[in-house]
Amino acid sequence: MRQNVQLVLAGRWLVSMDGGVREEAGISVAVAGDGIAEIGPNLAVKYPQAELLTCPHGLIMPGLVNVHTHAAMSCFRGLADDLPLMDWLTQHIFPREAQLTKEIVYQSTLLSLCEMIKSGTTSCNDMYLFTKEAARAAAAAGMRAWIGEGFFDFPSPCYGDIENGFAYAEELFSDCEGSELINITVNPHAVYTCSPALLQRAAALAERKNSLLHIHLSETRDEVKGCVERYGCTPVRHLEQLGLLNERVVAAHCVMLDEEEIALLARRGVKIAHCPESNMKLASGIAPVQKMLKSGVTVGIGTDGSASNNDVDMFGEMSTAAKLHKVRDLDPTAMSAESVLRAATLGGAAVLGVADKIGSIAVGKKADMIMLDMRQPHLCPLHNPASQLVYAAKGSDVLHSVINGRVVMRDRRLTTLDEVAVLAEMEKIGKIVRQMR
Amino acid sequence: MRQNVQLVLAGRWLVSMDGGVREEAGISVAVAGDGIAEIGPNLAVKYPQAELLTCPHGLIMPGLVNVHTHAAMSCFRGLADDLPLMDWLTQHIFPREAQLTKEIVYQSTLLSLCEMIKSGTTSCNDMYLFTKEAARAAAAAGMRAWIGEGFFDFPSPCYGDIENGFAYAEELFSDCEGSELINITVNPHAVYTCSPALLQRAAALAERKNSLLHIHLSETRDEVKGCVERYGCTPVRHLEQLGLLNERVVAAHCVMLDEEEIALLARRGVKIAHCPESNMKLASGIAPVQKMLKSGVTVGIGTDGSASNNDVDMFGEMSTAAKLHKVRDLDPTAMSAESVLRAATLGGAAVLGVADKIGSIAVGKKADMIMLDMRQPHLCPLHNPASQLVYAAKGSDVLHSVINGRVVMRDRRLTTLDEVAVLAEMEKIGKIVRQMR
Repeated sequence: MRQNVQLVLAGRWLVSMDGGVREEAGISVAVAGDGIAEIGPNLAVKYPQAELLTCPHGLIMPGLVNVHTHAAMSCFRGLADDLPLMDWLTQHIFPREAQLTKEIVYQSTLLSLCEMIKSGTTSCNDMYLFTKEAARAAAAAGMRAWIGEGFFDFPSPCYGDIENGFAYAEELFSDCEGSELINITVNPHAVYTCSPALLQRAAALAERKNSLLHIHLSETRDEVKGCVERYGCTPVRHLEQLGLLNERVVAAHCVMLDEEEIALLARRGVKIAHCPESNMKLASGIAPVQKMLKSGVTVGIGTDGSASNNDVDMFGEMSTAAKLHKVRDLDPTAMSAESVLRAATLGGAAVLGVADKIGSIAVGKKADMIMLDMRQPHLCPLHNPASQLVYAAKGSDVLHSVINGRVVMRDRRLTTLDEVAVLAEMEKIGKIVRQMR
Repeated sequence: MRQNVQLVLAGRWLVSMDGGVREEAGISVAVAGDGIAEIGPNLAVKYPQAELLTCPHGLIMPGLVNVHTHAAMSCFRGLADDLPLMDWLTQHIFPREAQLTKEIVYQSTLLSLCEMIKSGTTSCNDMYLFTKEAARAAAAAGMRAWIGEGFFDFPSPCYGDIENGFAYAEELFSDCEGSELINITVNPHAVYTCSPALLQRAAALAERKNSLLHIHLSETRDEVKGCVERYGCTPVRHLEQLGLLNERVVAAHCVMLDEEEIALLARRGVKIAHCPESNMKLASGIAPVQKMLKSGVTVGIGTDGSASNNDVDMFGEMSTAAKLHKVRDLDPTAMSAESVLRAATLGGAAVLGVADKIGSIAVGKKADMIMLDMRQPHLCPLHNPASQLVYAAKGSDVLHSVINGRVVMRDRRLTTLDEVAVLAEMEKIGKIVRQMR
């Protein structure tokens, strides 16, 4: 394997996430094919034929794992902020989603992928509409992606009736079979948009395909209230009664949970996508993440879509997560920088069931890595790398990015996507979206 | 005045803060001397001899006003995070502050000034130690700065006994007399570190010098509890009883306030420096900013020092402020993007008593302006400039910056400071700080 080293990353710090932090000039990681082949000093000298990504004050770390996105919603970024949730949805988002096209979804997903790569994300878990287009965009970007088509009781702008939805999902699975980077998931939208029958049918599909089941769960007080009124129990208990809580489930948000529900989610092996900025901006509340972690629940971090965040920058999300739980619990030791960094890397990998493959830098793992330039006013002096990454670093500090052994950004230039073309297309799409009524 | 136009900023959007938002190719602002001379289309053609700062997708806006900083604390960035407040202060910060030197303060202030300019701040209100050095650094940077030496009952690492502190403050006032950009303030640290006599003596000095009085106020529950135990009333009421609440007072934090205190602060014309990220990270709580604004209190935004934030980036602070109050009040309409943008510009100017001079782009005002490059994945499409600036823009999107008519950053290169030299010095200082015991 070492003979085939085609790429070396060399910097000054290595934050591997399971081998601690190393600081030494020329600390480097060698990549062969899609995997990490060797870690050590001065590997660029050892492998002179390999492509070199370097920075004298570079910090090499695992790429960030964004466990809850709606990438194509970037076309709605900033369109209608600071509104009551129902006004936002019914007057601005739903009417426009009904007019979405394949092309808008494809281009808007590309836009979010540009932003993700430029801010250090190397894996995302995406749920939306017209997801064949999302898969096409992710393949073009070289992003490691989990993608699923949203299922609802009502007709979808993408596939119409739910029967067609299942057919669409089957085609997605077929299209992406054998893909190294694209993983298809099953996405019943939420308990308030999916009947028990639809939830069970979706779960059966996930079981049959051996895929993740990605769902919004206990996001708002209204969701809980509605579920109690309709089914006599909370959303988590509703899924439990339907027999749907298991290790395949990636539950986004989980803002409104009681102690018993946290214990139940832990027992069933349900994974949580924590989206602090979206939960703040939509005034949903603050998820009890400290309690989840203490109960042994696996927690990753997600940005949600750009209509409710308004970005897909995981560095910002880490910083917010670290601070928000301190003020929530009035405890300055809550959610340490280390624990947040873990949630955004290895934790996210565990949420997606691939902690053996990604989320840390170790020989034999997939080469999903980023390098930050730490020689900048806001990152100096560097007393503690984890603190610096979580509290001070920005997405714009990411210099190079590698996904599955492939360089997707070099010196902040995207190599897989034509950023200028994407931005030009999105300006046109922005006008179309504003004019939709 | 127009004959003397020496600088033109030209972009695509102008967010003036008191004349609304304009979008037109070539929208431009002409600068003569330290002031704004003209606003209109294609002024670069009209003034061909003027220096031109431009960007095809540039957004011109007022520079941000950071109303509460401890710039030199950048040397402690990330040194000791995620700790209980008293451990952090007594074991990590105080022992090191006792060993600070003029040179460390000078260089560390320069570092924060580099970061401030690179993230769009054009005015700051700084309180710390060895502030002659802070004033020297601000003058070197060309920053518009309000600066005051911290007063305490106990000896200061800078001046020793408080008598010398007042002498030091008098020298500061003399040194900076007539300065266009440096304004000296009087800074009794807080009610728990200053006796009533010291508070009154400081207030008398501020009165005599016609300067601002900058103080930490009602930051934590412990502060309130201690004040009630010692003086039988809350910190705000304590200052009221001493006759010290008036229009000169800039009160930082104000996390713990009851309705009556808010009304009192409004009545007395006290100005508030809201520091959401510091209050989150130190687990102090969330200030009732919505209520303050509704009561007519003038509120600006501050980052606090980099030891408790961990940056001085006002774009991040704006984004946090906008989201935090929504989740605090469970109201998605709380703290709209417009209201946050106002607090960070005109609001900050009003806090510092200079809303007639800075905080908006208008003919006759001082030329404190920044230009952002909006042609980036996370800023596209642009449906609403205020939303984009508050929820999606980052400090790193600022391309050019002008303070008092002088270009301090061009194409992200600082023109007044040698960033490379500052970073090299700070790496050395970082080592010294870590070794302090």
